[in-house]
Amino acid sequence: MRWAAYAPVQRIVGVLLLFISLAFLPPLVFAVVNEDGAAMAFVISLVTVSLTGLGLYWPVRKAHHDLRISDGFLVVVACWAAVCLAGAIPFVLALDASLADAVFESTSGISTTGATVFSGLDVMPISILWYRQQLQWIGGLGIIILAVAILPMLRVGGMQVARAEATGPVKERRLTPRIAETAKALWAIYIGLTLVCAAAYWAAGMSLFDAFAHSFTTISTAGFSTHDASIGHFDSVLIEWLVTFFLFVSSLNFALHYLALRRGSAQVYLKDPELKLFAMLLLIVTVLVTFLLWQQHAYDSFWEALRYGVFQSMSYTTTTGFGTADVSLWPGTLPLLLILVSALGGCAGATTGGVKIIRVYLLTKQGMRELQRLVHPRAVVPLKLGRRTLDPEVANAVWGFVSLYILCIIVLTLIVSGIEDDLVTAVSVVFSAMNNLGPALGEASSNWGSLADSTKYLMSFAMLLGRLEIFTVLVLLTPSYWKH
Amino acid sequence: MRWAAYAPVQRIVGVLLLFISLAFLPPLVFAVVNEDGAAMAFVISLVTVSLTGLGLYWPVRKAHHDLRISDGFLVVVACWAAVCLAGAIPFVLALDASLADAVFESTSGISTTGATVFSGLDVMPISILWYRQQLQWIGGLGIIILAVAILPMLRVGGMQVARAEATGPVKERRLTPRIAETAKALWAIYIGLTLVCAAAYWAAGMSLFDAFAHSFTTISTAGFSTHDASIGHFDSVLIEWLVTFFLFVSSLNFALHYLALRRGSAQVYLKDPELKLFAMLLLIVTVLVTFLLWQQHAYDSFWEALRYGVFQSMSYTTTTGFGTADVSLWPGTLPLLLILVSALGGCAGATTGGVKIIRVYLLTKQGMRELQRLVHPRAVVPLKLGRRTLDPEVANAVWGFVSLYILCIIVLTLIVSGIEDDLVTAVSVVFSAMNNLGPALGEASSNWGSLADSTKYLMSFAMLLGRLEIFTVLVLLTPSYWKH
Ligand SMILES: [K+]
Ligand SMILES: [K+]
Repeated sequence: MRWAAYAPVQRIVGVLLLFISLAFLPPLVFAVVNEDGAAMAFVISLVTVSLTGLGLYWPVRKAHHDLRISDGFLVVVACWAAVCLAGAIPFVLALDASLADAVFESTSGISTTGATVFSGLDVMPISILWYRQQLQWIGGLGIIILAVAILPMLRVGGMQVARAEATGPVKERRLTPRIAETAKALWAIYIGLTLVCAAAYWAAGMSLFDAFAHSFTTISTAGFSTHDASIGHFDSVLIEWLVTFFLFVSSLNFALHYLALRRGSAQVYLKDPELKLFAMLLLIVTVLVTFLLWQQHAYDSFWEALRYGVFQSMSYTTTTGFGTADVSLWPGTLPLLLILVSALGGCAGATTGGVKIIRVYLLTKQGMRELQRLVHPRAVVPLKLGRRTLDPEVANAVWGFVSLYILCIIVLTLIVSGIEDDLVTAVSVVFSAMNNLGPALGEASSNWGSLADSTKYLMSFAMLLGRLEIFTVLVLLTPSYWKH
Repeated sequence: MRWAAYAPVQRIVGVLLLFISLAFLPPLVFAVVNEDGAAMAFVISLVTVSLTGLGLYWPVRKAHHDLRISDGFLVVVACWAAVCLAGAIPFVLALDASLADAVFESTSGISTTGATVFSGLDVMPISILWYRQQLQWIGGLGIIILAVAILPMLRVGGMQVARAEATGPVKERRLTPRIAETAKALWAIYIGLTLVCAAAYWAAGMSLFDAFAHSFTTISTAGFSTHDASIGHFDSVLIEWLVTFFLFVSSLNFALHYLALRRGSAQVYLKDPELKLFAMLLLIVTVLVTFLLWQQHAYDSFWEALRYGVFQSMSYTTTTGFGTADVSLWPGTLPLLLILVSALGGCAGATTGGVKIIRVYLLTKQGMRELQRLVHPRAVVPLKLGRRTLDPEVANAVWGFVSLYILCIIVLTLIVSGIEDDLVTAVSVVFSAMNNLGPALGEASSNWGSLADSTKYLMSFAMLLGRLEIFTVLVLLTPSYWKH
């Protein structure tokens, strides 16, 4: 009878699949209108996923809604895994992709990682191109709700740290207390940003299709493109600056956008310590990258170096992975530097991946604090964020996160280095997947297609691990969770 | 007049150089007896270093001994840097080595890292061979005193964590309160172990010269050899097991050896939680390495795999770097695995490098603790070591150490990857130097000679950084230290 305890979880996954099957409709329309041959694939996907959803929902439709907080972990992981699997179906049917490729591409989309195993995007059925972009956009929607509304309830994630900062404004930051209302507000902002971004891209010269397709993957800081050359395809400085701007906006805490809108004032942005940190780090990375590009004569002029430096710094720091240049071919330390800055990963409560600015900041500050304590042993130097002292338990959660992050990266890298011959490839794909970045180095510098199937499955797992802030997935692997 | 404040520091460095210049006498004897042509080099070194020492000492010989605790950082760093520079002189004079090579080799010796830039050891002047081994042995002497007696006074290092564990036995662990007495006791153990080890090697078939030469670099877990093929030169299973045994003994906390001797009982070993952890991790690493060697058919039989697996697991986990095989050519994940385990680095209060078992354990436990707290939010799970709860401030010091360790590795790797073309080389030399391991991958797999001069200087810095537990060096770079 213990299975009955999980009936509410099954019910939620069933309903979600029923809803998500509707996502096959827009690409189906594209396929029919353009007669690109993928229509049947989307019809079968729609039927399969909706029937599966119904099959999960129907037997437990009367299950009581007595979910405990701790069931939330299972719900979150089961939902994300189910959507990643469902999303893989059209790739198998329309592109004859292997299961490993299809699952990887779908997970890469939904997790907003944006690493691809497919090449020849410019000649792919237009409905599939649209579908890939849409996967990322839906993934972004999911993350916003997850990061701002659900994970804090489970006491996981960067928002907990960001919120713990302020005892005053904290109540306001909690947004509306009920998930449904919060979701509506955040989704409105997310959709609004997408429309504004698409309009700007269109005005700047993209086709309406490309404008929406890239707006989808900009607001979700995801990185899929409809062209093999990514943003470089358009070769337009104007478009690059627009992408840079909208990436910055999208990697801020969406709770800030909500507050700014509600108050009708940009003051909240100026007062946010996390935003300040993020802007400062972005500036440092951009100046460093531009300087190195210029000093190493990677481009003909300083202005060229600035153009590519600004764009790629933003693209990597926000864990997006859009390209205007093949960064893996840049000279000296630049490829490594850009892969590493992806760990910074924007603000909590955004669609970005990585460790998150706030955690990197606290970790660095802890190091400096201990140095200080050596000079002034008797001085009490509290760990602060903005003006407020950090709750020690929140700090503990950060050290715990960093510990598991390092542990996961080490274990995954060891396994992958046993599968892939090239060590640079092995290390960089794990790092890129865990940070939901997308680009990597070595054999996976532009495309992950040549990796082994087992690597693709493992990296699909890693992408979810990173996306769900590690804790959410790992807690399901502890025996005490299931005894609970 | 502010310089006067540093007169006692200058005095100590001067006296140390006077003493250390005596270290040129034994190799001088070897050079004269064997007429290997290096005698003049050691004479000049002796005169230069002793005169420099005298020059530093004489003007401040009457400086009052009013050293503050915080001056300790400067004393430690100045002493180590001075000895590393002094130790470089014979390499320049006898081998016509470049300054970068000489400084690197000397620092690698003194820090017990054991990476070498010289090849053709088997045809090198015998006095120089002896001198290299002796550098490491002296470095080991220095580390024991540093780790057990001096760094805890400065509130730095793994011993602080290991000691904080027990409020009961802590008093006993403090050993004798005065440094001089402690030093004598520890040195007696260190010298005794060296003699026993040399006798064992000799009995097992090494020449008397080789027996002492390798005993010097076993007890200091340092890794220099008198042969290019390292321990593999002897091709003797008996010798390999002896090395394994003495490496294990040398990577235990020397304070434990002291207590065991004083009480005449091995009970202290069995009760030590750090030792248990270390033994368990060693077992896991050994089983894993042996299994992978056997499963990947790297050797003809299981017994061969066991032989090489046991030896190299011990050699890397204790950050020694002795070789019986070229680990960088081992299949699959093995080279990366062995490089990574060097971060475990034996027990606090030993000559090993790395992060130290105790810190790795606490970091892992913190991750698990936070996972537990997600399942049981109301449960108070204190961070424990053995049976005692850890002082939060000691835990904070560990997170601070880990933070600075990661930060240093990232910054150094970024710089080196801008100098060296191969990314695997860049990452592995930094990791190896910071952990005082010795072997690396890529171009530096057996010999670091082909690296750029700037890399060699940087890695000399990294070796000292790792050796002096990071804090000791970095605190000198904070402005508040000098304002103090
Ligand atoms: K991405
Ligand atoms: K070593």
